[in-house]
Amino acid sequence: MKYILILNGPNLNLLGQREPDIYGTATLCDIIASLGEAFPQTALRHVQSNHEGAVIDAIQQHGLDPDCLGIVLNAGAFTHYSYAIADAIAAVKAPVVEVHMSNVQAREEFRRRSVIAPVCRGSIAGFGADSYRLAVEAILRF
Amino acid sequence: MKYILILNGPNLNLLGQREPDIYGTATLCDIIASLGEAFPQTALRHVQSNHEGAVIDAIQQHGLDPDCLGIVLNAGAFTHYSYAIADAIAAVKAPVVEVHMSNVQAREEFRRRSVIAPVCRGSIAGFGADSYRLAVEAILRF
Amino acid sequence: MKYILILNGPNLNLLGQREPDIYGTATLCDIIASLGEAFPQTALRHVQSNHEGAVIDAIQQHGLDPDCLGIVLNAGAFTHYSYAIADAIAAVKAPVVEVHMSNVQAREEFRRRSVIAPVCRGSIAGFGADSYRLAVEAILRF
Amino acid sequence: MKYILILNGPNLNLLGQREPDIYGTATLCDIIASLGEAFPQTALRHVQSNHEGAVIDAIQQHGLDPDCLGIVLNAGAFTHYSYAIADAIAAVKAPVVEVHMSNVQAREEFRRRSVIAPVCRGSIAGFGADSYRLAVEAILRF
Amino acid sequence: MKYILILNGPNLNLLGQREPDIYGTATLCDIIASLGEAFPQTALRHVQSNHEGAVIDAIQQHGLDPDCLGIVLNAGAFTHYSYAIADAIAAVKAPVVEVHMSNVQAREEFRRRSVIAPVCRGSIAGFGADSYRLAVEAILRF
Amino acid sequence: MKYILILNGPNLNLLGQREPDIYGTATLCDIIASLGEAFPQTALRHVQSNHEGAVIDAIQQHGLDPDCLGIVLNAGAFTHYSYAIADAIAAVKAPVVEVHMSNVQAREEFRRRSVIAPVCRGSIAGFGADSYRLAVEAILRF
Amino acid sequence: MKYILILNGPNLNLLGQREPDIYGTATLCDIIASLGEAFPQTALRHVQSNHEGAVIDAIQQHGLDPDCLGIVLNAGAFTHYSYAIADAIAAVKAPVVEVHMSNVQAREEFRRRSVIAPVCRGSIAGFGADSYRLAVEAILRF
Amino acid sequence: MKYILILNGPNLNLLGQREPDIYGTATLCDIIASLGEAFPQTALRHVQSNHEGAVIDAIQQHGLDPDCLGIVLNAGAFTHYSYAIADAIAAVKAPVVEVHMSNVQAREEFRRRSVIAPVCRGSIAGFGADSYRLAVEAILRF
Amino acid sequence: MKYILILNGPNLNLLGQREPDIYGTATLCDIIASLGEAFPQTALRHVQSNHEGAVIDAIQQHGLDPDCLGIVLNAGAFTHYSYAIADAIAAVKAPVVEVHMSNVQAREEFRRRSVIAPVCRGSIAGFGADSYRLAVEAILRF
Amino acid sequence: MKYILILNGPNLNLLGQREPDIYGTATLCDIIASLGEAFPQTALRHVQSNHEGAVIDAIQQHGLDPDCLGIVLNAGAFTHYSYAIADAIAAVKAPVVEVHMSNVQAREEFRRRSVIAPVCRGSIAGFGADSYRLAVEAILRF
Amino acid sequence: MKYILILNGPNLNLLGQREPDIYGTATLCDIIASLGEAFPQTALRHVQSNHEGAVIDAIQQHGLDPDCLGIVLNAGAFTHYSYAIADAIAAVKAPVVEVHMSNVQAREEFRRRSVIAPVCRGSIAGFGADSYRLAVEAILRF
Amino acid sequence: MKYILILNGPNLNLLGQREPDIYGTATLCDIIASLGEAFPQTALRHVQSNHEGAVIDAIQQHGLDPDCLGIVLNAGAFTHYSYAIADAIAAVKAPVVEVHMSNVQAREEFRRRSVIAPVCRGSIAGFGADSYRLAVEAILRF
Repeated sequence: MKYILILNGPNLNLLGQREPDIYGTATLCDIIASLGEAFPQTALRHVQSNHEGAVIDAIQQHGLDPDCLGIVLNAGAFTHYSYAIADAIAAVKAPVVEVHMSNVQAREEFRRRSVIAPVCRGSIAGFGADSYRLAVEAILRF
Repeated sequence: MKYILILNGPNLNLLGQREPDIYGTATLCDIIASLGEAFPQTALRHVQSNHEGAVIDAIQQHGLDPDCLGIVLNAGAFTHYSYAIADAIAAVKAPVVEVHMSNVQAREEFRRRSVIAPVCRGSIAGFGADSYRLAVEAILRF
Repeated sequence: MKYILILNGPNLNLLGQREPDIYGTATLCDIIASLGEAFPQTALRHVQSNHEGAVIDAIQQHGLDPDCLGIVLNAGAFTHYSYAIADAIAAVKAPVVEVHMSNVQAREEFRRRSVIAPVCRGSIAGFGADSYRLAVEAILRF
Repeated sequence: MKYILILNGPNLNLLGQREPDIYGTATLCDIIASLGEAFPQTALRHVQSNHEGAVIDAIQQHGLDPDCLGIVLNAGAFTHYSYAIADAIAAVKAPVVEVHMSNVQAREEFRRRSVIAPVCRGSIAGFGADSYRLAVEAILRF
Repeated sequence: MKYILILNGPNLNLLGQREPDIYGTATLCDIIASLGEAFPQTALRHVQSNHEGAVIDAIQQHGLDPDCLGIVLNAGAFTHYSYAIADAIAAVKAPVVEVHMSNVQAREEFRRRSVIAPVCRGSIAGFGADSYRLAVEAILRF
Repeated sequence: MKYILILNGPNLNLLGQREPDIYGTATLCDIIASLGEAFPQTALRHVQSNHEGAVIDAIQQHGLDPDCLGIVLNAGAFTHYSYAIADAIAAVKAPVVEVHMSNVQAREEFRRRSVIAPVCRGSIAGFGADSYRLAVEAILRF
Repeated sequence: MKYILILNGPNLNLLGQREPDIYGTATLCDIIASLGEAFPQTALRHVQSNHEGAVIDAIQQHGLDPDCLGIVLNAGAFTHYSYAIADAIAAVKAPVVEVHMSNVQAREEFRRRSVIAPVCRGSIAGFGADSYRLAVEAILRF
Repeated sequence: MKYILILNGPNLNLLGQREPDIYGTATLCDIIASLGEAFPQTALRHVQSNHEGAVIDAIQQHGLDPDCLGIVLNAGAFTHYSYAIADAIAAVKAPVVEVHMSNVQAREEFRRRSVIAPVCRGSIAGFGADSYRLAVEAILRF
Repeated sequence: MKYILILNGPNLNLLGQREPDIYGTATLCDIIASLGEAFPQTALRHVQSNHEGAVIDAIQQHGLDPDCLGIVLNAGAFTHYSYAIADAIAAVKAPVVEVHMSNVQAREEFRRRSVIAPVCRGSIAGFGADSYRLAVEAILRF
Repeated sequence: MKYILILNGPNLNLLGQREPDIYGTATLCDIIASLGEAFPQTALRHVQSNHEGAVIDAIQQHGLDPDCLGIVLNAGAFTHYSYAIADAIAAVKAPVVEVHMSNVQAREEFRRRSVIAPVCRGSIAGFGADSYRLAVEAILRF
Repeated sequence: MKYILILNGPNLNLLGQREPDIYGTATLCDIIASLGEAFPQTALRHVQSNHEGAVIDAIQQHGLDPDCLGIVLNAGAFTHYSYAIADAIAAVKAPVVEVHMSNVQAREEFRRRSVIAPVCRGSIAGFGADSYRLAVEAILRF
Repeated sequence: MKYILILNGPNLNLLGQREPDIYGTATLCDIIASLGEAFPQTALRHVQSNHEGAVIDAIQQHGLDPDCLGIVLNAGAFTHYSYAIADAIAAVKAPVVEVHMSNVQAREEFRRRSVIAPVCRGSIAGFGADSYRLAVEAILRF
């Protein structure tokens, strides 16, 4: 059965606790649950890890799975330096969409550079939990 | 009556003619038309100009109009150097969403820097004509 | 009859509305009016435009007019990238004085560099509406 | 009827008046007139504007006109920052040749970088009014 | 019961073996043991890992534990590029003190930049094993 | 009694002798004297030193004196590197106005950066001895 | 018994599947197998991981094992930012030889910088699977 | 008799008055007094100056005095540019410990670089007045 | 008898063989021959060398020869780093015109900087073999 | 008869005399001789020159010779700036392998950048005289 | 009576004590004394200070004294950042020769840039105490 | 018999002809002749070449000759990029003194960096022909 992977990187397990003025009060569970409600027809799977290697493993495993329609990836701070994640994205078939809840361009200088963006299909930033929702829609339209 | 402004900057009037391998074959008319079909309940207005000043004028006029729900802005190459457009966005109340049809991060180095992104509410890039559609949805959810 | 041109660039038409904590609540009209009161003996003309080309046109037209004693130029964000305005200033006879209401050196990094300063006669920044007043005085003393 | 467009950007309308030690004493009219004499068989059209948007409009209109053999473009200071003009050049069919009257490489540092050169067919700089003449010859040989 | 976490990153398990002219001959065990002797009243816990993800996990788990008085963090080489660890530090309540045994400022250029320092409460470098001792004292005084 | 401090940094004691094509032939004495004539109602004090420490001492002493209305500071070459003077300005209550006689933006590259500007209230450059006069006026209007 | 460690970093488990125009069609298994055939007298061990920490662990464990003659390390994208791996290499006795299958200098700019090269004994790049073979030979000659 | 020198650079005489949200309300006198209480067995001497030369003189005089156990140096803003102070530290025998009350790494960009750190024995930042106390302890352990 | 020197630097002897998609199929001989035909009235001399010193020698010898009307110089890759050639050009009387067959601005980053351009009279790039022809014409018009 | 060219650039004629702690005590003759012994079946030719032009000449002559199997190139310090050698390598058919005896990445900063690496087939560094041997093997396997 | 000023900046009073492997064992007294012996006909005066302001004062006082033939200036670490000293040198008539005992170009990166060199008449570095002697000779020849 | 080599690089054969306002009117012959007169007891040899390779050859040949007391090297523009000459200097025993006639620090930016200075014994610049004379004296004192 076809599905979309929601893949979250480091510190996103703390959503709702961490800097709520930037990231809001919804937890990651809340976000995943409301995505499920918004897309009742679509199977969604979810992986979160603080380990770069685990993020790479997930991209490889799902990105090469013919049932995976695409990956919604919030790589957290790995976005800014993990060329290894970028290589994993480039190596798989499934389209990967980069998402950020906050408008990363409006924050610290180091957050303005994404090393994974060039190998993603597209990117969406600044819409809070809706960033995920828009990304799922985008994948469903590919 | 409430509306959303679709605002396009330089050279986007050539869509369909210009580098179709990057931008596809749909014309700007086609895109606007299909946005209308996708959002039949929402009034959409459209402005395109190759003149930076006209883009600023439009942001000021519509961005301060209480009926304007938001602005979907594809600033084209102005994205990369027009601090004047950025100042206009910062000066108005309406939320502005930056869109790009192509994945600008995967192209020339100069396209990787957006001077307007820090003052936009969010940004969406890489989904072709769907970038506009996702942006309209995002604004409708604000 | 001799006169001084007050020339304002992009977004300065929004003074009073735009970020009042930075720019104050006086409108551009207020500022021009109070300049008129402060210098009752001096003819003042005023041009504002969001169009870089219109700013250049004004510099050329007035800067080559023998009756123009000088130009008080607040180029707004054009200050930071419009080499074309800089070339226009260099090409005319009338002295041009760069003004900014805010202390541009204390704001974002990109505002710390002026590409027009090297061809202006002098510059004045940080005194709110008084920046214009000091500039007019400076021109009257040349 | 086939023709070549001579397209001049900001401040070039001041030729003959502006910094004659750099640009000589011939006016833009003189240059256009002597080009006409030099190429009596070739239809030449001429556009000059201080407005970036007008330069883009001209490139689009003429560059997509099948009768236009090519565009001789002196973009003035836009050369150094107008990625929007560069995009227009890339979007049209007609070959564009970049010209400068002065040897821009021997002047200020910012004049050493052309953002439009990579999308032009070639460039010619340093020969005064002859830069235009050589460019017309080059286009006639394409 | 209240405690302080001593958290060591990559290659610090090799202390005593690795480049003893820089890091001395005491092993990590020796250092932990002597810290215990120096602070007999204070519960100390210790985690070491070569895995960035495990360092993040530990910061999250202990940094959000109300019994944790603070974290003494020697992030080893992660100091210089792990924005993900920096985000974890920013996300927790417990104060984090950055320590280095060697004077990192006197070594290779890349060691002069810490991406975690801006989100730590303070930092101590250059005192060998005493760097840990001073950090524990600092936390006890908060 | 309320007063304004005119504070001059290194080499300004040589005014009139030093590079008169840049700085004019008036001596510092002449400038102070003519300021006195221009503002007969205002008490002016004057300090000049080639010693950075003496400039800091003066800023501290006068900047914390409730009778001091403001400081007109020409920091000379200290402008470009003395973060210690910048800290002193930030630490005092009196408003400090940065002045330069020459248009520093039109000179060597290193003169284009002021490390004190971000903590000054405003800055005035390029009007010769009139730069001081305009600064005094600006302070009187605060 | 003496042995050589073949240590592969992130995404190298996808060899044969990933971008075959760059990396060829041989799988990592094929490469290890053919190395075994080429060096029948030499014991070879093999570790691959997408986890930076696991790569560090392996370098520590084998690099300090007196039976390990050397390590052939293809660190994949970790090459370009993992100072932690570099520290591990510097901390062990066994010589480490950096290998890359592709000519990394001919690819993206970020691949031109290796943070591990300065602490490796030597490096070999551009010979496809033969890069490993040459590295084993080099270690056997030390 | 053996002693430790507490050496403070520019603007630290204003402690308690200057930006109390960053530096607290204790004056320099308070800090010195409480250091005396904390270390009743240790002779402490104190020097403060806004003059770079006086700081150098103090380092030379005390740093070469065999009775001086070490120097606790808060160089204030000189930290960021005074290579002359760095040379003085390198030239003397007594160990110098760099201290900062605030976490300098979390403030302006220019405060992230210390030109004296490479020649100091160690550095301590971010603990307010306790930074001095920890530094004295560190010196007593050398 | 008056003449023009055609001076070619490294690897231009391979024209016709080397990367024909960039440089075309005409050999250097062909180009020289067709130049001769195009300018039957003008004596042309030709030098090619892969040796920087030989290029300098030629510039000196011919550039100081009163019969030499000018030098058409394609310095090949020396263009980008040979300050010694630049010094030679600056030292001679004959005007030197820089030519490139390809549009060097559209190629690798290092080719965008010419160290010889500032001392040449002008430059022509992007017209294939016609670049030489236009340069000869330009010299004949001086 | 097929052969491999061993091509050495500047100062390599001094091997054995020059900085033996970096380069060892074997002379270039010794190295060539022992290569001959190691590959008795393969014809090897050898060229050394301190002249960049001679290195280019050799690459052209041998690289276009159908009997040349490949070139082992130790370009010495030319590695770091000779774009002309890079162009020669790109222009010939024979594969070129870059070799260095020392680990250039572990030495001065300027040695970390190779301008010829992007056009070589591969590179080998750090194995002393064995670097040449490995390169010959690599070429024999192509 | 005509004289030459020997002017030494910070830490040079420690010569003979400070890092003798770099600076030798002669004290500043020894150097001055032996200069006196070497130039028995020439009056030499000597000033040393650790205070930048005192160095500026000395340059002003002696540099404007018609009896001063020239100044031999070893500005120590001020060389690398004191634009104020540079301005003083530019403001006086007497020729200033920059000297360094060590070869500053062979030391730390920051020592490779002199901000005073552009305004000195010449510079001499690397000859130990002889650097002063050569500078005196140079001044006597002006 | 012991001797000193005077070694001149590119374009120095044009001394007297080339930019006499910078280099004076004395020819290289004049300079060599007057050096001979100034040092009648010292054998001087002279080499000049525009070929980098020839400069390297001369450094190798003379620098390894036990009769050579030292080399006075004016490398001309090679100073700024010839790492190959720097390597040659590092490889020989004879001390090399870098000389420049003009004050290279006061000219174009690229002339402010010497790649050979770090391996020279010392350097002398700015004294015209006397730079050579001072260098010979310096060598005689070694």
